[in-house]
Amino acid sequence: MGFTKKEYEFLGEIGVGPDNLGGYVDGKWKATGPVVSSVNPSNNQEIARVTEASIQDYEEGMKACNEAAKKWMSIPAPKRGEIVRQIGDALRAKLEFLGRLVSLEMGKILPEGIGEVQEIIDMCDYAVGLSRQLSGSIIPSERPDHMMFEVWNPLGIVGVITAFNFPCAVLGWNACIALVSGNCVVWKGAPTTPLITIAVGSIVQKTVNERFGKCLLELSGNNAIIVMDDADIDLAARSILFAAVGTAGQRCTTCRRLYLHESIYQKVLDQLIGVYKQVKVGDPLEKGTLVGPVHTRASRDNFEKGISSIKSQASILSLGGKILVGGSVIESDGNFVQPTIVEISPDASIVKEELFGPVLYVMKVKTLDEAIEMNNSVPQGLSSSIFTRKPEIIFKWIGPHGSDCGIVNVNIPTNGAEIGGAFGGEKATGGGREAGSDSWKQYMRRSTCTINYGSELPLAQGINFG
Amino acid sequence: MGFTKKEYEFLGEIGVGPDNLGGYVDGKWKATGPVVSSVNPSNNQEIARVTEASIQDYEEGMKACNEAAKKWMSIPAPKRGEIVRQIGDALRAKLEFLGRLVSLEMGKILPEGIGEVQEIIDMCDYAVGLSRQLSGSIIPSERPDHMMFEVWNPLGIVGVITAFNFPCAVLGWNACIALVSGNCVVWKGAPTTPLITIAVGSIVQKTVNERFGKCLLELSGNNAIIVMDDADIDLAARSILFAAVGTAGQRCTTCRRLYLHESIYQKVLDQLIGVYKQVKVGDPLEKGTLVGPVHTRASRDNFEKGISSIKSQASILSLGGKILVGGSVIESDGNFVQPTIVEISPDASIVKEELFGPVLYVMKVKTLDEAIEMNNSVPQGLSSSIFTRKPEIIFKWIGPHGSDCGIVNVNIPTNGAEIGGAFGGEKATGGGREAGSDSWKQYMRRSTCTINYGSELPLAQGINFG
Amino acid sequence: MGFTKKEYEFLGEIGVGPDNLGGYVDGKWKATGPVVSSVNPSNNQEIARVTEASIQDYEEGMKACNEAAKKWMSIPAPKRGEIVRQIGDALRAKLEFLGRLVSLEMGKILPEGIGEVQEIIDMCDYAVGLSRQLSGSIIPSERPDHMMFEVWNPLGIVGVITAFNFPCAVLGWNACIALVSGNCVVWKGAPTTPLITIAVGSIVQKTVNERFGKCLLELSGNNAIIVMDDADIDLAARSILFAAVGTAGQRCTTCRRLYLHESIYQKVLDQLIGVYKQVKVGDPLEKGTLVGPVHTRASRDNFEKGISSIKSQASILSLGGKILVGGSVIESDGNFVQPTIVEISPDASIVKEELFGPVLYVMKVKTLDEAIEMNNSVPQGLSSSIFTRKPEIIFKWIGPHGSDCGIVNVNIPTNGAEIGGAFGGEKATGGGREAGSDSWKQYMRRSTCTINYGSELPLAQGINFG
Amino acid sequence: MGFTKKEYEFLGEIGVGPDNLGGYVDGKWKATGPVVSSVNPSNNQEIARVTEASIQDYEEGMKACNEAAKKWMSIPAPKRGEIVRQIGDALRAKLEFLGRLVSLEMGKILPEGIGEVQEIIDMCDYAVGLSRQLSGSIIPSERPDHMMFEVWNPLGIVGVITAFNFPCAVLGWNACIALVSGNCVVWKGAPTTPLITIAVGSIVQKTVNERFGKCLLELSGNNAIIVMDDADIDLAARSILFAAVGTAGQRCTTCRRLYLHESIYQKVLDQLIGVYKQVKVGDPLEKGTLVGPVHTRASRDNFEKGISSIKSQASILSLGGKILVGGSVIESDGNFVQPTIVEISPDASIVKEELFGPVLYVMKVKTLDEAIEMNNSVPQGLSSSIFTRKPEIIFKWIGPHGSDCGIVNVNIPTNGAEIGGAFGGEKATGGGREAGSDSWKQYMRRSTCTINYGSELPLAQGINFG
Repeated sequence: MGFTKKEYEFLGEIGVGPDNLGGYVDGKWKATGPVVSSVNPSNNQEIARVTEASIQDYEEGMKACNEAAKKWMSIPAPKRGEIVRQIGDALRAKLEFLGRLVSLEMGKILPEGIGEVQEIIDMCDYAVGLSRQLSGSIIPSERPDHMMFEVWNPLGIVGVITAFNFPCAVLGWNACIALVSGNCVVWKGAPTTPLITIAVGSIVQKTVNERFGKCLLELSGNNAIIVMDDADIDLAARSILFAAVGTAGQRCTTCRRLYLHESIYQKVLDQLIGVYKQVKVGDPLEKGTLVGPVHTRASRDNFEKGISSIKSQASILSLGGKILVGGSVIESDGNFVQPTIVEISPDASIVKEELFGPVLYVMKVKTLDEAIEMNNSVPQGLSSSIFTRKPEIIFKWIGPHGSDCGIVNVNIPTNGAEIGGAFGGEKATGGGREAGSDSWKQYMRRSTCTINYGSELPLAQGINFG
Repeated sequence: MGFTKKEYEFLGEIGVGPDNLGGYVDGKWKATGPVVSSVNPSNNQEIARVTEASIQDYEEGMKACNEAAKKWMSIPAPKRGEIVRQIGDALRAKLEFLGRLVSLEMGKILPEGIGEVQEIIDMCDYAVGLSRQLSGSIIPSERPDHMMFEVWNPLGIVGVITAFNFPCAVLGWNACIALVSGNCVVWKGAPTTPLITIAVGSIVQKTVNERFGKCLLELSGNNAIIVMDDADIDLAARSILFAAVGTAGQRCTTCRRLYLHESIYQKVLDQLIGVYKQVKVGDPLEKGTLVGPVHTRASRDNFEKGISSIKSQASILSLGGKILVGGSVIESDGNFVQPTIVEISPDASIVKEELFGPVLYVMKVKTLDEAIEMNNSVPQGLSSSIFTRKPEIIFKWIGPHGSDCGIVNVNIPTNGAEIGGAFGGEKATGGGREAGSDSWKQYMRRSTCTINYGSELPLAQGINFG
Repeated sequence: MGFTKKEYEFLGEIGVGPDNLGGYVDGKWKATGPVVSSVNPSNNQEIARVTEASIQDYEEGMKACNEAAKKWMSIPAPKRGEIVRQIGDALRAKLEFLGRLVSLEMGKILPEGIGEVQEIIDMCDYAVGLSRQLSGSIIPSERPDHMMFEVWNPLGIVGVITAFNFPCAVLGWNACIALVSGNCVVWKGAPTTPLITIAVGSIVQKTVNERFGKCLLELSGNNAIIVMDDADIDLAARSILFAAVGTAGQRCTTCRRLYLHESIYQKVLDQLIGVYKQVKVGDPLEKGTLVGPVHTRASRDNFEKGISSIKSQASILSLGGKILVGGSVIESDGNFVQPTIVEISPDASIVKEELFGPVLYVMKVKTLDEAIEMNNSVPQGLSSSIFTRKPEIIFKWIGPHGSDCGIVNVNIPTNGAEIGGAFGGEKATGGGREAGSDSWKQYMRRSTCTINYGSELPLAQGINFG
Repeated sequence: MGFTKKEYEFLGEIGVGPDNLGGYVDGKWKATGPVVSSVNPSNNQEIARVTEASIQDYEEGMKACNEAAKKWMSIPAPKRGEIVRQIGDALRAKLEFLGRLVSLEMGKILPEGIGEVQEIIDMCDYAVGLSRQLSGSIIPSERPDHMMFEVWNPLGIVGVITAFNFPCAVLGWNACIALVSGNCVVWKGAPTTPLITIAVGSIVQKTVNERFGKCLLELSGNNAIIVMDDADIDLAARSILFAAVGTAGQRCTTCRRLYLHESIYQKVLDQLIGVYKQVKVGDPLEKGTLVGPVHTRASRDNFEKGISSIKSQASILSLGGKILVGGSVIESDGNFVQPTIVEISPDASIVKEELFGPVLYVMKVKTLDEAIEMNNSVPQGLSSSIFTRKPEIIFKWIGPHGSDCGIVNVNIPTNGAEIGGAFGGEKATGGGREAGSDSWKQYMRRSTCTINYGSELPLAQGINFG
């Protein structure tokens, strides 16, 4: 029996049917848990059905995974890299279809859906090279006839839990590196994007559930952009638009706070309001759409509640909370909301809370120091960006007295990271790092090994014992 | 008014008197809390008195520290290194006196006391070089006219809490690197070694209390040595002695479990028992002493309780628990106990509990795989050592199927690490790393900085937005 | 008009015909120089004809290359990596055919021919990862408001001249890394292997001639294997066979000197002679052949001359020079010679000269020190290997008093390097390094950049001027 | 018998007398060669006499050095670091006296003399840390049961030849790192600064002559400063002054070419001329002196010849060559010359020749591209600097289309490098790197070691042989 809509038939190309098994256990698709629906956020209608893995499936899968882990870590890293290369090639062959499914099920626009799948492919290519570079060190020993090594060994099993907003790129960041590092990977996708979990899993991965010892957290961000008086205003406005409304404001790197220097405050604001009014909200698969639906009906309701809370604060306090553009849900079968700008005082406490949708708080600042203090004043520390053309501002911003975030940008949006750098944030954001740089060390354990190959027993620090 | 004993007068050379202030607050010694005694574990008599810092002193100190941190992080790292160099020189000038005090107050033998102070000095020298090498990276960006930097900035304030067994080396590991990294350091010494805290603080450090955000843990170890059938038995026996009875068994890297291959089991055991019988237990400042007192009366009592629990298990279960040598406290004013060897079955659960004194469990193994499995079977993962002359065993031991500890030695004891490598362990031991290698990264925060210096706005993964 | 033999028709699949243009100039195949023949070393008959590039073609090509270099270095490194990835995929699609051509034209056996092409493919994959890791450093400056960077920039144009024995792998080592590093590559293949130059060039590279400023040399080796008394004899014998007769002894890493510990001298020698007698010499494309022809008639003549020089020395001096096995050319249309073992005294000067064919000198040693001294006694310093099972020998061998070569192996042959490490040698071998590790730095230039973004002018070393 | 002048008596403090032995051979001062005078460039009178080492002394020294090298490389690197630390402390104790002697004998002003000695001390401190960080790598092997190491071993003996302009700092750069790397160092100082060679050698080093295999060259520079239209003019003018007249224009990093953007050409020039007129030329030991004598009478004569050549060109060609300030020697017993500015056309060929004194060529440029092209148009590639406040200029300047020098500065002079970065240049400057970063690798040789610890013989690239 086929899909309810002809436009879903492309899913057959990537191994998804109207009814699917949601667990991949010991080399076979298997699932004996409850059945859930995958729903299209543009119309809230069912796309397909998925039978979830049960606890028993999970236990069975973990057992198989344990056995596999022992073998996988014995395979030389460059050989593991070759397998990850083949995974990348398999995904490359289905890039368009997979990107389309991300769009369809998550609600982000097609270029973003495809870009997300491209990110796993990039990670695969990157991990192949890395598989010959997971290098330990040989450190000079203070003792004669001794060698000191720093050796990196795999952890064993790495569990990855991904959220709905990046249903597959985050898997790619973690799985590609975890695999070349010698680990088996257990993936649990978001409950609201089961199909992309299956479609990626059809070529790639064992999918069961979660359990791991070392913990790498990537939690929420409440990210700010600062625009200084010397900034390129056009560049800033385009960046803010992408940062604030891209993915309907549902990225962990979405810009939620905008600090404008008082001298260019009105100019930037006018330009932004003009652009916001022209943003096309609608079907994410349609050409020209910039903002698709928020992911679920519940997300739409949260947006509505958030806006009414802003409005009520505005009337009570003299802290602003004035909606300049947007501020409403769009009546339809789907979960569409208006991209929104709110003018508010930096003292308003609501600014420190995260509203997971396309809502941007705009505030006025007088100095760089004030702007940096504001940027750092929230509990999270993921991403941040400044627009300026002055080297002294750039280097202060990235230095000890600058942004306290893990991602510190200049003249680009808060979102849209490259895989070559380490992705992650400080403070309440969790401290973990994924993707490039030395993030692979998070998927391995380190041993400091000292080997005495002589016949004497000299002690460190010159101690004489016995 | 002077010290009660003439032999304590040397303490005047390092700024310690009969009565001392235990807090260093905003550039001055200050303490308004309760008075505690520093007690000599060899006779349980008072050495001197210390007034502890009160909560109010602490708050005052932290406030001053916050102000200092802002300035300290603005000083270029190599200039901070120069100050750490001077700290090292100041300690070097008083090496003998400080080492003597460590011995006197903690109870470890003099060569170990001096070795411990030497370790801070080594760390200072090491940190000076490091101050020009706290290097970030410039990573190739996939976008034209973009630079991607990985920048390391100081955390601000680093708190160090040290335990009684290494009253000053652990400070050295942390403080030297934290300082060159641009942090202010707040040190809380162990309540039972207040004098060494003061004596080191007299030249070195602000001493208040603890508070920090990022957490680097170095918890307990339950460390094993394996001796294979091809080992150099003499080397092994001397190493086991140092690892098991050094510092009266009170190091976190003390060897508590000994796995002997069945073919050399009796030979090694006989040799060890012979050596144990000759070990001189006594005043740690006296020449020839190998084992001083355990640190407090409570430690002595714990030893006694542990031994009687071993004995009772031995009579009930058929798992061994037979005391081959030692097994008693030594009646005296001090806290002396006998170095002890217990023969026991690897299945005895008591082996997985830590008895913080000179007690060594000896067990028989048949194969390398069995020995590695035993080594890895405890919750802790700090240090481990194997004695062998076969390359295939050495490389298995340090590889993915080998020891799961942070310190993995070959033909040397479990204790006595050099500062050039990273010190720390996995699993329940906490995962932190101190001293050499890239441990300095634990005292800094990392930012991935992307700077657009062009006039275009290309997006990562080739995404086209708007 | 077709090939003279049906068995050459596969060459059409990789862009080679009976007549070929030997220069690739500004995006087009072009050559106006003399015509040369590609000759099959198994029968000295023509495979196909190649028109070589003239000086004028070269000048034209270099001009175009100069223009291209300016653009290529502006493309972000990860984008350059993507192009190298596509090159690798194109080669992968023709692996079998290209490997067959290497075998046919160079004379090495088919598994080696395919292995050589595989090596470029591996290098491509490796270089893709590297394209996001060509990282510079941010070094702490001793001056406030200063940043110190170490930046790596491309050289511009890199010329690669390859020898006949590795007609394409050496290109791969250099070109893949040179390309991702931002350079244009100019390749001059060996005059006796023009077809593989064209076949690889058909998909890959601009091919003109040579000219470059920075020089990376990989010159000859005169490589030794040492077998100690505790060695695994079977492993050693198999390794020596591959090292001495593989590629008919025409690798730069071929083993030419064998030092056997006196206690196992006769045993190893007997085993080797037995194996040498069974080695199949013949058509390199035929299954079971281990030794193909030497590359040219001139090589065969050189072999003959070398052997007669050895024989004449043997009769005059009492230094040995006794041929134990082999020692003759094989009469046929091709360039076949017998794998040869010569027993000789370590004092014979002929041992320090390189005979580029399958001739192995065997010598007796008494101690490790003597063996190492012998190993290091030649002007070259490329590769070396020891067979032993003792850690103290292994670590001495790789340490300051051990082998002085760039490649220092244990229990494997002198040849057959992996791409992940740096390939190259010391002393007369030239000092260059190719392939893995930080070899990419040889294709780039380094700038130490200090940026003052403050308004003061502090000087280094605290100098006060004016 | 004492010094001829009372003001030289301080030399006794650093081991220099009126008559000195100029060779340090096998642990003793020894010299049997000709006697040379050390001459004060401020008055051309003798300071003291030095007997030089003869060829025989040299041979004797080299023999002893060879023996020492074998022992020194066996000492663990951190222990070697401790000895270098003590060298640094010994120099620190005599900093003022040694700096005074540098000034007296070489002619540079006292702050520069002291700064130079400080630089060796800094290098010592740096090298101490480095002695625990001369790290090799453990690279993942593609073969099971194989380890791939990259090991760094000492070269043996390193020879250092220093020029008169930095009689001791250059020794420091090389010797400190060469020593911790495990090499013995042979130093040949400049013939015109024999005393500082002895004074530093009195505490530090074996001094004989030169001979080495690997060659690290630091040749001449012809360095330019560019001032763009947006530059901080005051900062630029002060920097140019230090860069052009510091050390009387006798640094390898001295600025000899100045490219001023046309829009600020006259303004900068006027300011410079004003400052040049106030520069105090005179006794380098006197407070307030900015420019001491050039080093020898021959240097003074060269200056005179250079100026007259400029003048003759000016009258013949229409390429400028107009002397704006200075241009004469100063009549006195010493070697004093006037700091000189010459206005000239960028097309004048004389600009590409190096005049080793305080002569600055000033030229006008219209664009950044033109300025960079000019900067890169000379054969040398040592140092270069730009003054600007625009990020797009800064990043272009340090990127692939920017300066081709080894030192690329922004808003600081061409001279005055910190030790933490690598010092050296490209093109005719030689390509060597000294001091920080990974310069230590130039003093060591690298081995790629592959260890097979299994019983199988898998080959790289999956080749199957025999």
